Amino acid sequence: MNGPARSTPHASSKAAVLDIIRAAGTISRVGLINATGLTGATISLAVRKLLDEGLVLETGRAESTGGKRRVLLQLNHNARYAVGVHLDHGGITYVLTNLGGAVVARITRPGAGGQEPSVIIQRMAGEVAALIARVGVEPSRVLGLGLVSPGPLCASTGMTRTPPPMRKWEDYPVDRELAAATGLPVVLDNDATAAALGEHWSGGMGSASTSAALYMGTGIGAGIVIGGITYRGNSGNAGEIGHVCVEAMGPECWCGARGCVEALAGPAAVVAAARADQALARLVDAKRSHQSLAADFAAVSRAARRGEPQATAILERSARYVAVAARTLANIMDVEFLVLTGPSFAIAGSVYLPIVREELDRGFFARGVHTVEVRLSHTAATAPAIGAAAMVLQSELVPLHAAQRLPENLTVDEPALAAPIV
Amino acid sequence: MNGPARSTPHASSKAAVLDIIRAAGTISRVGLINATGLTGATISLAVRKLLDEGLVLETGRAESTGGKRRVLLQLNHNARYAVGVHLDHGGITYVLTNLGGAVVARITRPGAGGQEPSVIIQRMAGEVAALIARVGVEPSRVLGLGLVSPGPLCASTGMTRTPPPMRKWEDYPVDRELAAATGLPVVLDNDATAAALGEHWSGGMGSASTSAALYMGTGIGAGIVIGGITYRGNSGNAGEIGHVCVEAMGPECWCGARGCVEALAGPAAVVAAARADQALARLVDAKRSHQSLAADFAAVSRAARRGEPQATAILERSARYVAVAARTLANIMDVEFLVLTGPSFAIAGSVYLPIVREELDRGFFARGVHTVEVRLSHTAATAPAIGAAAMVLQSELVPLHAAQRLPENLTVDEPALAAPIV
Repeated sequence: MNGPARSTPHASSKAAVLDIIRAAGTISRVGLINATGLTGATISLAVRKLLDEGLVLETGRAESTGGKRRVLLQLNHNARYAVGVHLDHGGITYVLTNLGGAVVARITRPGAGGQEPSVIIQRMAGEVAALIARVGVEPSRVLGLGLVSPGPLCASTGMTRTPPPMRKWEDYPVDRELAAATGLPVVLDNDATAAALGEHWSGGMGSASTSAALYMGTGIGAGIVIGGITYRGNSGNAGEIGHVCVEAMGPECWCGARGCVEALAGPAAVVAAARADQALARLVDAKRSHQSLAADFAAVSRAARRGEPQATAILERSARYVAVAARTLANIMDVEFLVLTGPSFAIAGSVYLPIVREELDRGFFARGVHTVEVRLSHTAATAPAIGAAAMVLQSELVPLHAAQRLPENLTVDEPALAAPIV
Repeated sequence: MNGPARSTPHASSKAAVLDIIRAAGTISRVGLINATGLTGATISLAVRKLLDEGLVLETGRAESTGGKRRVLLQLNHNARYAVGVHLDHGGITYVLTNLGGAVVARITRPGAGGQEPSVIIQRMAGEVAALIARVGVEPSRVLGLGLVSPGPLCASTGMTRTPPPMRKWEDYPVDRELAAATGLPVVLDNDATAAALGEHWSGGMGSASTSAALYMGTGIGAGIVIGGITYRGNSGNAGEIGHVCVEAMGPECWCGARGCVEALAGPAAVVAAARADQALARLVDAKRSHQSLAADFAAVSRAARRGEPQATAILERSARYVAVAARTLANIMDVEFLVLTGPSFAIAGSVYLPIVREELDRGFFARGVHTVEVRLSHTAATAPAIGAAAMVLQSELVPLHAAQRLPENLTVDEPALAAPIV
């Protein structure tokens, strides 16, 4: 999906104009000139191309402000679609979103488990085709597929280090194979980064200049959004909050380091603690199947909601470690807004939320300057897949370089632009 | 120093052009057009203004490439100056830099100690005047003063939370008072962020897209540079790596949280451990004076260099915690280059360097994708003051918004531009 056209100034201004129309809802050509600083001729040309391609519609006229009433433009939401896939060993979530980022179809299927990657890829291709067919979208209108999985990822070889149940995927060219199987261009990214982007597109990231999504699926991670753009680091592997050390002499983690918060407090640690507890062992799968991790974690959470004190204690211990990692993230990034997202927070977020909030109120280093607002996502289970689809829309329609080049008042997805400008 | 002119497109293109000339060394007008994408008319106008203000000089002609030989432009390094001040309780470091960021004068004086801020401010004003007078620079050529101190800082009230010895400075309007006392505009920032900027201007930050400076003075912090720009977070308080938790059940830190790396491993912890050791107690000040912290830390470091095993053990224990915090920083930011800087690394960096390197080689999460290069700064003692002066040059000459608006190939301080483009 890296055609040379994307780096030309021409493609960039078209993409920038499209994104401003998307964020604004409706906007006139004059509004676009004001918002971009581009010339009238450039805007006219870009709008003409967007109309020709069917990506934008003319939609009535603005209220008169004295002169001629201006023609309003809006995104043609159903002109294009994108598939988002969240691959994890515990489950695979698929969404189909339209150009505006709205989810038009969603399915969840069994995870990668311990099966061969090539077998899973063939199954995924069938599930993607079924997803698209279900809503009757012409395949030619599907721009591509965003695939997100646990990191760290490498552009050429996919996952370079995997949680134990996904070892077979290490250095497997997952993006290339899935592209071949589906016939769609594939972009690959980290699940937590995608979750942040999904929250951002869903309006769940607030308006702070730096926000973060603390993600918990089977692993723990974070996605960071700076000025409306997901921050990726040198290799796309930023935000690995699951592997920050919270006990220097703690247990060894599968990543090779010691005392990682994921090893001490992730869903696998919660389930292991439940398995070791006489009162709770009956709730969790004795076979320690990786497939059952999400179900076992949910069982412990239900027990806590029923008021079983051992289950509550285990989850609260996990939450305190997660809260410490959240404080670390906030202190390093000077974050003003944090959303808890991902499948495990969809299940047990209500236990974690107050403990994370308390830790940040009490311990955030710059608390004398500002607080850190913490919220639980409304789309915690699907945020990574939504973000995966958004990645496709972004890379096709808003080349990242163009977005970074926008003046500050044009920051992509700036909530101030969510209302019409003109 | 926040004049409205800075936000006009006009001021921005002038500033952007100036910064490209600075980074390029010498460059022609055609080179500027190519590098900026601005029109010939805009470049001509901007260059004319820079020549009129004496900020830029014409300096001979480029080799002919067939046509007319092009006039080369270069920065007039001695047209303007900036003062940088690093205020800490252990010492105050002053530098005077020219427009190119080169240090033309430097002095170090006793720290803030326990004295009243108003007394220290008056002394500082005298020391600043002496610094400027020493090199015979006309005061009218001094653009302003950058002041850096331990965070967290608040724009309106200065330091909002201070290490114990600096409690009197809490909520003291240090920037306003120093501006009144010196007659210079003052910009205030965090010492670790300034150290990163100082390293960046001194060429010590490499060419990675995300680099960090791990700072140790009397406290521990970090400055983060993303794409050539210092990352500041929501309130200018990013990079507080000294207050990441490395022992969830560790001792309480002065900041109010538990298990912070600064509390476990900072110079005060090193000196306290030496004081508690029979063999080393003779080396350190029994009165626990805050003034003597830097001297005491240096005494322990010298003992380690002499081969005293207890001193080595204490420093290595500190280094292991610092290394864990460095790994946390690298995992969250996906850092490719890390420089150890600040007065305490100037003293004991050789002990810390191999231990930080080993931790990152062994435990950096994305080590399968890339390594993290770690170096010891050549300007560790003065980097914060150099960065403080650079802040003044940046805010006067390269408004941050303008810099953020530059296309990627114009990233401020891009090392690729250090050689002439034309």
